[in-house]
Amino acid sequence: MLTKLSENRCFQGRQLRYQHYSEVLKCEMKFSVFLPPDADIASVPVLYWLSGLTCTDENFVFKAGAQRMASELGLAILCPDTSPRGLGLPGEDDDWDFGSGAGFYLNATQSPWNQNYRMYDYVVTELPAVTETFLPLDGQRRSISGHSMGGHGALVCGLRNPGRYHSISALSPIVAPSSCPWGEKAFSHYLGKDRKVWRQYDACQLIPEADEHLPLLVDQGLSDPFLEQELRPHLLEQACEEHGYPLVLRLQEGYDHSYFFIASFIEDHLHFHARHLNFG
Amino acid sequence: MLTKLSENRCFQGRQLRYQHYSEVLKCEMKFSVFLPPDADIASVPVLYWLSGLTCTDENFVFKAGAQRMASELGLAILCPDTSPRGLGLPGEDDDWDFGSGAGFYLNATQSPWNQNYRMYDYVVTELPAVTETFLPLDGQRRSISGHSMGGHGALVCGLRNPGRYHSISALSPIVAPSSCPWGEKAFSHYLGKDRKVWRQYDACQLIPEADEHLPLLVDQGLSDPFLEQELRPHLLEQACEEHGYPLVLRLQEGYDHSYFFIASFIEDHLHFHARHLNFG
Repeated sequence: MLTKLSENRCFQGRQLRYQHYSEVLKCEMKFSVFLPPDADIASVPVLYWLSGLTCTDENFVFKAGAQRMASELGLAILCPDTSPRGLGLPGEDDDWDFGSGAGFYLNATQSPWNQNYRMYDYVVTELPAVTETFLPLDGQRRSISGHSMGGHGALVCGLRNPGRYHSISALSPIVAPSSCPWGEKAFSHYLGKDRKVWRQYDACQLIPEADEHLPLLVDQGLSDPFLEQELRPHLLEQACEEHGYPLVLRLQEGYDHSYFFIASFIEDHLHFHARHLNFG
Repeated sequence: MLTKLSENRCFQGRQLRYQHYSEVLKCEMKFSVFLPPDADIASVPVLYWLSGLTCTDENFVFKAGAQRMASELGLAILCPDTSPRGLGLPGEDDDWDFGSGAGFYLNATQSPWNQNYRMYDYVVTELPAVTETFLPLDGQRRSISGHSMGGHGALVCGLRNPGRYHSISALSPIVAPSSCPWGEKAFSHYLGKDRKVWRQYDACQLIPEADEHLPLLVDQGLSDPFLEQELRPHLLEQACEEHGYPLVLRLQEGYDHSYFFIASFIEDHLHFHARHLNFG
């Protein structure tokens, strides 16, 4: 069951926001979805967009300017929130890089997070089931993208489930969370101290195990303040080269970590996914 | 003197935000400006964008998605704030439709507002002088646009100063503030009870007096909740018809008052202004 929170006409399509009870996360969740005009007459392919730290489902909707090209391409864009919300867990709202707004698209194993912080299952399984039941989204044509923590999420969800997506892309992704401050903090709390468990949520460690390859596009701004310590795209490049995973990595001179960067290149990502969803 | 607050690379250009002391408003003011790549080598034409009630200089920057086409057209977009700020005047922050965030682009005559609330002079005179001194903006090529209260501002500034602008456009403008609740509230506080004084800030009353005509484009969403009571574009249409002022009024089915509406049609406005700035 979906409750519609808002609907705005946008580029001849519809920008929608819904609330629903998530069985996986055991709380009420909100998500946003853009439906292109084509969705009025048929199910349309869908791009999952995973946002970064501190974001909700709305940042991308307001700031990325993606609806214009999505409307033209006939592509839906589905934006989940970045964590469960309002659970009242101790420490949940203390840090901007952990807990609320920082679910890291994984299934937590450690108490008290393991009851609710299961964004991996939510994004990969529950949200598609719910939205493809109630909205005109084509379950056979999904792709996935995201920014920063959400770029990490897109890489992990995509690499682990090549049958569920046609293509993967990311802007400024955390490519090796097991060995950067943001990732180490989140993983140790959500997943515990055993770093072997972390591997399933680390793109650079998933690349060697990928037996099916999806088209993969990554953009990274070279003036991004998190480039050296948190993002380190060369590690992904290295893993892909070593294991023959086809990666298009583009380093963009002068661009930072902001939505101005995302807005500048999102059109390329939409074209990329449209092409691999076999209709662009 | 301008103090740079931020700079972000955006569509190969630069999204900038500055602070300066306004002699007209007698307070520190912030404004945002997008400079297209062309501005690196020459002065570029500039579109003034005036925002609506409750906005700052930033809403348009984050939400309108205008930088892509502005970059392509070589057009700067200059976004002032919507009122003086932080003056500590009694009642200044009490209402969302009066005082802070609601300057209505006029020169107040009534105490205590008349010392600072002079957004008309700020937008028409001071801001051009300041920005054309310190930034690569071409003072011979200005156009003006805005939304809602800012659409009113664009109409009034443009109609009263045809020599300063090449073209005028507006989305969901307040076209007859003298006879709608938002306008009557603001004008009676800022300008006093004498309605003759109000005429100089009422687009529908300026049209009959316009002896020079500028190209004029207005978009209005037909699902705008403020359409009937506050905006009433038919009054502008009527005034323009009666007095031979060339107006292109477009009524957009299904669109509301939000930034989703602005984003959907801003590209048309940029093309319109570029054409009349003689370079698009």
